Amino acid sequence: MTVAILGATGYTGLVLIRLLGRHPDVRQIIPVTSSRPGLALTEVDPGLSDAVLAKLTPTNGCLAPIETAVAARPDVVFAALPHLASAQACEPFFGTSLVIDLSADFRIKDHETFRSAYGRPPAYPDLLERAAYGLPEWRRGEIERADLIANPGCYPTATLLALLPFVSAGCVRGSIVVNALSGISGAGRKEQAMYLYSERTENANPYAPGLSHRHVPEIRAQLDEFSTSVGGRQALLFTPHLVPMRQGMEVTSAIPLDRERTDDEIEELFSNAYKSAPFVRVTRGRLPETRHVRNSNRCDISWHGEGSTVLVFSVIDNLLKGASGQAVQNMNVRLGLDETAGIDLDGEF
Amino acid sequence: MTVAILGATGYTGLVLIRLLGRHPDVRQIIPVTSSRPGLALTEVDPGLSDAVLAKLTPTNGCLAPIETAVAARPDVVFAALPHLASAQACEPFFGTSLVIDLSADFRIKDHETFRSAYGRPPAYPDLLERAAYGLPEWRRGEIERADLIANPGCYPTATLLALLPFVSAGCVRGSIVVNALSGISGAGRKEQAMYLYSERTENANPYAPGLSHRHVPEIRAQLDEFSTSVGGRQALLFTPHLVPMRQGMEVTSAIPLDRERTDDEIEELFSNAYKSAPFVRVTRGRLPETRHVRNSNRCDISWHGEGSTVLVFSVIDNLLKGASGQAVQNMNVRLGLDETAGIDLDGEF
Amino acid sequence: MTVAILGATGYTGLVLIRLLGRHPDVRQIIPVTSSRPGLALTEVDPGLSDAVLAKLTPTNGCLAPIETAVAARPDVVFAALPHLASAQACEPFFGTSLVIDLSADFRIKDHETFRSAYGRPPAYPDLLERAAYGLPEWRRGEIERADLIANPGCYPTATLLALLPFVSAGCVRGSIVVNALSGISGAGRKEQAMYLYSERTENANPYAPGLSHRHVPEIRAQLDEFSTSVGGRQALLFTPHLVPMRQGMEVTSAIPLDRERTDDEIEELFSNAYKSAPFVRVTRGRLPETRHVRNSNRCDISWHGEGSTVLVFSVIDNLLKGASGQAVQNMNVRLGLDETAGIDLDGEF
Amino acid sequence: MTVAILGATGYTGLVLIRLLGRHPDVRQIIPVTSSRPGLALTEVDPGLSDAVLAKLTPTNGCLAPIETAVAARPDVVFAALPHLASAQACEPFFGTSLVIDLSADFRIKDHETFRSAYGRPPAYPDLLERAAYGLPEWRRGEIERADLIANPGCYPTATLLALLPFVSAGCVRGSIVVNALSGISGAGRKEQAMYLYSERTENANPYAPGLSHRHVPEIRAQLDEFSTSVGGRQALLFTPHLVPMRQGMEVTSAIPLDRERTDDEIEELFSNAYKSAPFVRVTRGRLPETRHVRNSNRCDISWHGEGSTVLVFSVIDNLLKGASGQAVQNMNVRLGLDETAGIDLDGEF
Repeated sequence: MTVAILGATGYTGLVLIRLLGRHPDVRQIIPVTSSRPGLALTEVDPGLSDAVLAKLTPTNGCLAPIETAVAARPDVVFAALPHLASAQACEPFFGTSLVIDLSADFRIKDHETFRSAYGRPPAYPDLLERAAYGLPEWRRGEIERADLIANPGCYPTATLLALLPFVSAGCVRGSIVVNALSGISGAGRKEQAMYLYSERTENANPYAPGLSHRHVPEIRAQLDEFSTSVGGRQALLFTPHLVPMRQGMEVTSAIPLDRERTDDEIEELFSNAYKSAPFVRVTRGRLPETRHVRNSNRCDISWHGEGSTVLVFSVIDNLLKGASGQAVQNMNVRLGLDETAGIDLDGEF
Repeated sequence: MTVAILGATGYTGLVLIRLLGRHPDVRQIIPVTSSRPGLALTEVDPGLSDAVLAKLTPTNGCLAPIETAVAARPDVVFAALPHLASAQACEPFFGTSLVIDLSADFRIKDHETFRSAYGRPPAYPDLLERAAYGLPEWRRGEIERADLIANPGCYPTATLLALLPFVSAGCVRGSIVVNALSGISGAGRKEQAMYLYSERTENANPYAPGLSHRHVPEIRAQLDEFSTSVGGRQALLFTPHLVPMRQGMEVTSAIPLDRERTDDEIEELFSNAYKSAPFVRVTRGRLPETRHVRNSNRCDISWHGEGSTVLVFSVIDNLLKGASGQAVQNMNVRLGLDETAGIDLDGEF
Repeated sequence: MTVAILGATGYTGLVLIRLLGRHPDVRQIIPVTSSRPGLALTEVDPGLSDAVLAKLTPTNGCLAPIETAVAARPDVVFAALPHLASAQACEPFFGTSLVIDLSADFRIKDHETFRSAYGRPPAYPDLLERAAYGLPEWRRGEIERADLIANPGCYPTATLLALLPFVSAGCVRGSIVVNALSGISGAGRKEQAMYLYSERTENANPYAPGLSHRHVPEIRAQLDEFSTSVGGRQALLFTPHLVPMRQGMEVTSAIPLDRERTDDEIEELFSNAYKSAPFVRVTRGRLPETRHVRNSNRCDISWHGEGSTVLVFSVIDNLLKGASGQAVQNMNVRLGLDETAGIDLDGEF
Repeated sequence: MTVAILGATGYTGLVLIRLLGRHPDVRQIIPVTSSRPGLALTEVDPGLSDAVLAKLTPTNGCLAPIETAVAARPDVVFAALPHLASAQACEPFFGTSLVIDLSADFRIKDHETFRSAYGRPPAYPDLLERAAYGLPEWRRGEIERADLIANPGCYPTATLLALLPFVSAGCVRGSIVVNALSGISGAGRKEQAMYLYSERTENANPYAPGLSHRHVPEIRAQLDEFSTSVGGRQALLFTPHLVPMRQGMEVTSAIPLDRERTDDEIEELFSNAYKSAPFVRVTRGRLPETRHVRNSNRCDISWHGEGSTVLVFSVIDNLLKGASGQAVQNMNVRLGLDETAGIDLDGEF
């Protein structure tokens, strides 16, 4: 297979190159950039091994302009571009390539919601209808048939994997309170003072609380689709925080249930949802830590029940299961490959 | 004045030495240790300046055994010792010195609650009755008269300063959900693998959720005392997290109110509570960050209203307002000194 | 006194505001910015206390354009601006105010050397002659008389304090090899990808080795002036490294001596140089660590002799003794104030 | 193949499990501990994937006592134990298994040197003679024949890869000055206050300078063996430093040459040494950074010439090329497998 990566020099692009470089079914990678075509990729990222660099065959190890990718008619295109720029860059590949978009451009189907979150209407309203939301643990059927996959955001991934077992079972009553901690790489390579080392080390803070965070409508939309008539619509109070680490995300969700449930009952809810999910590990009695999923595509989950409320803890690497790892997982699922091909499962000790 | 610090070589002890070393009314400091009397303090902490070391006059810059402190009949004794060891170490000073205890030994007045949190009954039940809970913003009157001050924990300090304006006004309805992020120094100098650099850097995790955390009864007790009959008792769901920083604490509290309130109304609630509090800064429209209170005794607070729920964000330095800074503040309040004497208010940029 | 700070929103500017805000002889501070006059300083730096903000009297807590500072005819002007921009910004204050320049613009007296390091000739060649090099431990006499003080760079400060006792005693033979480790704040608030948290955390690297680093001519010039005829000119091999910390600098200097010397002899060399220097602490037998001088204006020094080579280890906080702290020290020395007035000496534990 | 890992719960042991768990020729892994046999490995390290855990077949995912490993007669034994404890633990496997020892116990052949560095004579003097020093880039022939491989320390690996091209070519004249920066994981999981997060974050310091560091004799011994008669014995001045990162090592070596050499000449020296070394990457004109080899077994090297001195910069991940990665590389070389089998080459971006 030949794949192209649009936005290859961003953090999610560089992780994609690593994963696809080790993927057994990928033979050629075309790394695309709009700003610096012709530059050797090792100038941007000296960390890549020669084996991975050797797969950049058509470009001889250099970054390519988008025209090169269009001409190559790649089997798969990964768009790792900023929101609102991505949809348009994908346009030449619709119909010829499987497109996996890591931006938010195809994640929210409701036009009005999209506009209020991103300030303008969606660029390709008809494609939006056909885009599958790429959370394989909950949307496998659609993903298997889609030609356009909207890869979820990191906050939605970690939050939905925690909430959906309860929401889909119709046992939530009242407001869900979600607090999320994110590593700094979630902001990408933005050259802004607030992401400088000297301003982030030894520092923690909340930001964009409640409905002011753009990921809330994305989470909201999925919750609504999976809510049963019994449970109805739940209020969601979401607060993201930045903490001083590069990669990693922890989400603590306080979920009020219709009645108190035993640990056995909760374990069964999770088991029903994830028993055959290779990237979700639910552990009873041991709370997860982000370092154990660093560089892994796993989502580790545990919980603590208190009265009729359950606290659910989920951790991911925001760049893997929260972005590039899940994108490759989506490719694998869509193309009928081994779901874990090319994807690391070991986290750090 | 002469002051003694029991447990001078722990993190809170070392911060106390810095603060008291710069305090205009403190002339002599006796640093007490049970484990290494006779050792020069600079061996333990080469960071101290000569000016501060010069105040260790009776001990000539060395750590002293407790007998030295007892014999000196200090004006004030700060006990910076582990829970359950502290009360007994304070015993020789009751009646002769003002005792400010940074452990939990005198914080919880209910014997049964104390026993369930700490595994044994309180050591001095009668003293417990006379101990003032050292949160000056809410307990000034008692502190001004007390000879024994129970300095609050870091989690309770940051949480109560966020919640009490609402609880005391009787406008809370339903369960309060609190998520707290703590720097690693909150664990003290415990030589355990889980606090090693290599296991904490680039890592975040929840721990001891809900009622399993020892600080919850301490918070609970204060909430109950300040709850008005109108509001009644609120459920509290508390989850602490460790994040990779040395000093700092951020608390996000989701507080359900009896009705939606405007930002003006909320600002007024805070203003009523803290208008003359030198160490609490409430900012409307700018969320707080822990680095801005690092090495400062300030608590910075802001909020975000969403429907009838208000999200309150409070940050402190766990070693200052969460421990040693507040202890010196309590001394100042008790002795009628300038409340800010010897205490830094500037945080980092 | 009234002082003005040009470039108040950079890291060294913000540290200057903290120090001068606590200085007993400073009554008014005018924070100057070229880019955002009128903005409240708390928007840029919410860490400042009300006590410090209250000293921004003429500007009412806001950043001022340079015209405000010129009109105020301040007693002292601190220029915390980029190299090559600073000299010109200082121009209106020459003759009326004491000017302390934290840039490199007045540090190198030789025009050709300046040009080769900074790409253009010095802006005010005649002023250059009259500028004192602001390393008070070695240039006190000149500083006491100067109206223009060139505050040294952080690398030169930590390096010269280590080398000059040996160089000035004429006992160096052969090449000196200096390896320096710097915290990231040394780069200032530059919004470049290479200073982002995600690219600096858990990362160390050398850069600009040997003569390619701009600070080498500055060090070189001072060494030459203090070299005695006996010792002659020593080669200097200098390599700076970035390590993942915000504040702090460690310098390891391998100095070949004319003969092996005992620890007593070396201690005496240091004692001769620094016995009355309040900001230099030489410790025999205990190697220094950067955290012990963090937020302190101290330089801690120790050494290890091996044969006729001595390894000297010096640590400073690059923002204090390496920049703003030394600038205030220079002001104190020049104006005959207590040399330590307003300057912290305690580092962290 | 079946392999056993003695000391499986230390940091190097946990990395070995990850590498061997992905190694195509390893079918069974026996993780051995002396302290906690029977414990599930996931309790110690929740980061491991199910695929790796599935290879712990004889022990069913649990830690085993050493008897289990002895009885299994493994093809390869990796000893990841402390110095002085390792040799004895390996004893039962000599003669039946290939033993790769990650401690220092078999690295220094001279008995007197060993004793002065480690305080007692070597445990198995005759085995010492037969042990190959496991630096494959320089000792391939011996490694291919050995039944006991002494895996080099991290400091020696990064230092020797930088120095040997020059030393073996006989072009060094005078004292070599080496400054090394190490991540904290180099100390292993030692539960000592000096390795706590709160004492290491934002901190840098030198330690054990010169001959007082135990790794110097190990480096010295290799230098002597490769020195040609022309160059003779070079003095070596070595200073290790701790910097706040978990994994990673940077070594800056100032090497005085017999004459000034061009970059072309230096490049050729390196090329002669490493042209077929899969784990050494020499880059001209771009200095290496530790993050680019994190989690990789690569050593990245560059240089800067200044007069007749060359500064050489080498970076490794102390846990990979500096320990466990090199151990697997040695196994591959010894057993005639693909040298890179099971070993990551990609570092981080």
